[in-house]
Amino acid sequence: MFRTAELGRTVSKDDFHEAAPLLRAELLEIQQQLRDAPFPVIIVFGGVDGAGKSETVNLLNEWLDPRWLSTRAYGKPSDEMEERPEYWRYWRDLPPKGRIGIFLSCWYSRPLLDRVYEKTTDAEFDEALDEVNTFEKELADDGALILKFWMHLGKKQQKERLRSLEKDPLTRWRVTQVDWDHWHMYDKFISAAERNIMRTSSAHSQWQIVEGLDKRYRSLTVATTILESIRKHLKRTKVQRRMIKALEKRSPSASSSASEPGPGSVLVSAETGGDDAPDGVVIPLSKVTILNHLDMSLTIATKDYRKELEKYQGKLNQAQRRARELGISTVLVFEGWDAAGKGGAIRRTTAALDARDYQVIPIAAPTDEERAQHYLWRFWRHLSRAGRVTVFDRSWYGRVLVERVEGFASEAEWNRAYAEINDFEDQLVRHGIVLCKFWVHITKEEQLARFKAREGVVYKRWKLTDEDWRNRERWDEYELAVNDMVERTSTSVAPWTLVEGNSKRYSRIKVISTVCDSLTTAIQRVEKAAGKTSGGKNLKRTG
Amino acid sequence: MFRTAELGRTVSKDDFHEAAPLLRAELLEIQQQLRDAPFPVIIVFGGVDGAGKSETVNLLNEWLDPRWLSTRAYGKPSDEMEERPEYWRYWRDLPPKGRIGIFLSCWYSRPLLDRVYEKTTDAEFDEALDEVNTFEKELADDGALILKFWMHLGKKQQKERLRSLEKDPLTRWRVTQVDWDHWHMYDKFISAAERNIMRTSSAHSQWQIVEGLDKRYRSLTVATTILESIRKHLKRTKVQRRMIKALEKRSPSASSSASEPGPGSVLVSAETGGDDAPDGVVIPLSKVTILNHLDMSLTIATKDYRKELEKYQGKLNQAQRRARELGISTVLVFEGWDAAGKGGAIRRTTAALDARDYQVIPIAAPTDEERAQHYLWRFWRHLSRAGRVTVFDRSWYGRVLVERVEGFASEAEWNRAYAEINDFEDQLVRHGIVLCKFWVHITKEEQLARFKAREGVVYKRWKLTDEDWRNRERWDEYELAVNDMVERTSTSVAPWTLVEGNSKRYSRIKVISTVCDSLTTAIQRVEKAAGKTSGGKNLKRTG
Repeated sequence: MFRTAELGRTVSKDDFHEAAPLLRAELLEIQQQLRDAPFPVIIVFGGVDGAGKSETVNLLNEWLDPRWLSTRAYGKPSDEMEERPEYWRYWRDLPPKGRIGIFLSCWYSRPLLDRVYEKTTDAEFDEALDEVNTFEKELADDGALILKFWMHLGKKQQKERLRSLEKDPLTRWRVTQVDWDHWHMYDKFISAAERNIMRTSSAHSQWQIVEGLDKRYRSLTVATTILESIRKHLKRTKVQRRMIKALEKRSPSASSSASEPGPGSVLVSAETGGDDAPDGVVIPLSKVTILNHLDMSLTIATKDYRKELEKYQGKLNQAQRRARELGISTVLVFEGWDAAGKGGAIRRTTAALDARDYQVIPIAAPTDEERAQHYLWRFWRHLSRAGRVTVFDRSWYGRVLVERVEGFASEAEWNRAYAEINDFEDQLVRHGIVLCKFWVHITKEEQLARFKAREGVVYKRWKLTDEDWRNRERWDEYELAVNDMVERTSTSVAPWTLVEGNSKRYSRIKVISTVCDSLTTAIQRVEKAAGKTSGGKNLKRTG
Repeated sequence: MFRTAELGRTVSKDDFHEAAPLLRAELLEIQQQLRDAPFPVIIVFGGVDGAGKSETVNLLNEWLDPRWLSTRAYGKPSDEMEERPEYWRYWRDLPPKGRIGIFLSCWYSRPLLDRVYEKTTDAEFDEALDEVNTFEKELADDGALILKFWMHLGKKQQKERLRSLEKDPLTRWRVTQVDWDHWHMYDKFISAAERNIMRTSSAHSQWQIVEGLDKRYRSLTVATTILESIRKHLKRTKVQRRMIKALEKRSPSASSSASEPGPGSVLVSAETGGDDAPDGVVIPLSKVTILNHLDMSLTIATKDYRKELEKYQGKLNQAQRRARELGISTVLVFEGWDAAGKGGAIRRTTAALDARDYQVIPIAAPTDEERAQHYLWRFWRHLSRAGRVTVFDRSWYGRVLVERVEGFASEAEWNRAYAEINDFEDQLVRHGIVLCKFWVHITKEEQLARFKAREGVVYKRWKLTDEDWRNRERWDEYELAVNDMVERTSTSVAPWTLVEGNSKRYSRIKVISTVCDSLTTAIQRVEKAAGKTSGGKNLKRTG
């Protein structure tokens, strides 16, 4: 694989000085165009020590406008990182749309070094690389341009390079014992690197192997590739936009159509539509959803409710105290109809917890910093440290609910969101986080009754907005979306709990008891795995 | 001080249930009004254990809309916190405008407990409380409403409370050994608390002592106080806005005036102005500023420049490697005229560093998340972890430069910014951070020459905008602002380095050698303090 990167290609000083100024000018120009683009550029550097990774990054920092460029490298994780899933650190450093982010020793580092040092098997290595692929695919799907450069040196070349760096007092510091250790492991490293490159090269994120021996050659190669790739990606994006606009003109989407079809049906745009008039066909929605199967008559007597609530609040409190000691985090997700009683259920649950241990994250419209990122970014950023409870009042499921129904997300976007969400939750669970997802369900009649009641109570009136009434009109579309959501994201690691919510008392008890049981199970698993010792810190990944 | 909080005040169940619903309604109503307000509400809870801090916070979470409310509590700091000045953690958690932030065991915790456990003297305690005062004053000056509740219990009451909590299996977990330890230190605690309350009560942030024995009494007291305070603050803010508008109408400010006075003078609004025509008086600007005293002919020969640059880059590189080991962070601030060569100086400096060790933070227009916070918030958030270099390309000094000259900040705002900035930098330096501030200076003629040259070079053309030309027209006003800035923020802990920049070579060497020297001095100080041992981690606060 690397033989073509050991050809000893060079660029002469004269050629370099002729090419460089023009290249710099074009890079700056493209960076200006990029600023308004709807995507970020993610540049990853990997490769052999001494092949010029840092120097190239420094050069890019010099040639590009540093205002729209960030460089991130990862060493030993901080405890704030350790206490969250591995990819949290990468998510928080992603460049927003219109900017370039350079990543050194990033998501490839651990899998590769673990394999080289034989901490992992080939199969485990592949698994780690699959995670990388999923991550990059999600970003690419969202429009990100991903460029990956593998800086290569032959074994002999690396030795010579390290030697010559050591000779010069000004560069001697660059060579450490680790570099020499790695040199001795060169063959192992190269074999792992090959596997790494093969398994993580795809149409949307291709590795480019760069011969690292000659500084001028590698600089021009990397810079030219970046320039050309951004240029192409900008063009592609523009064409896509134009196509989407043209398509929208031909067939207005359901969400923007003024004349709504009746409830129980959805407007589907016809492929053959040609003129300006809405030309969709109306197909009936399937009325049989998983929600129809819930026994909405379930309830609980007031006296029993009080007793049960107290019991579970006490249990939950003790469980959370233990979870805090063990470093077990909990993430609670609440989705449900307007007025379904999510807020009430959340408060009954948090009332059992110490204020120091939880935070409620209400998901409203994204801020502009959030809008400039992948839609999952704003959930990643809220993940708490070990041992805490994070409650999401509405969540990432907005993508496949409100964004789908209201047309804020395209069909392609919300369709691939199921897989993205499953992957996200899988990362949480694998990190040992207890994840409970609640759909609090009420019937359409019950909702109407509650809306009317809210109008009557002074301190609840603010809760009822015109939007609630508008959402209600789309009940059937939402019901279909909920059904799909439950079907496609109720995985074995992160199942949905459907809560029969016509009785507030019943639904609150169901929620708090579910949280209690999940947390208790997780605690027992961790304690068992640790042979019933305490001490938490090292255990938090075992759950 | 606390005698009036041991009167055994209670509220009957009936009275409570009559008052509570109305209070809740009003709280929700005021919270809705608050959402559009130009200030955040910061609520601090302190007090005796068992006096109902957590319960009250839980109650507020129940009564208020949790979507516009955040609760933060602080335990043992994470290493990411430890590696930054103490207040970094509080800054990052501040609520944005329009929201309420509740803080438990926050900035009062450490000073108070350190005093109770006799880790500090009264004088040191006072010093820590002064920091608290400065912090709160800055927030209050920016418009924040700060409410502080001290929840009190008598010694006997506390004992009884702990006992009764222990009796109930459901609340037993709430009582820990630490609580009993604290009870035994009750008198010491109360005496420190008194000093704490006395020294940190001011017009803008008053402590309210709340008798904590009766749950209903304390709940109503706290909730009512919050309601009334927000109501008053909203009114005050509205009145202020109206007054400012009225004043603006009477006397158009210099910055919004269309007919500019000639260079070398500034338009001062006349107090007596009444009609619509600009009615200011033109007073001459003092032309003698600190910048006039610079020897702008300083330069360095190309050959010497190359040699010096290489020398300092080598030195800086080694110094930074040692600084990284010792956990010494560096913050570099670059301010200067457009085209003064800040970018070039920054790149010559960062070129000596490993890409893993530094980040360049370009300060452009704030995002909406930043706009919703105190103006210093967006600099606090960028502080790096221990051992790193953070380069600010423009900085918090924008407040007293561009924001002052362009009228984005009011006179009161930029005037108090000097003290706020000095305090901010003082916190950095006390944490052991090496801080270098550069004003890169060029003459007006040199700037013109560079603007014209930029127009000639393809890859520099994008650097020149209409705004640069506009800024140039305000040269004299900026010069006055720079002079004031240097005068008022060149403190002994954080002096300005004025860089004679007409010769780019000279200025680059001056910058990099200054950074080198400062870093080397800091390293020597730390090494000396540690008796020349290495190991860094524990030393990072000694610098």
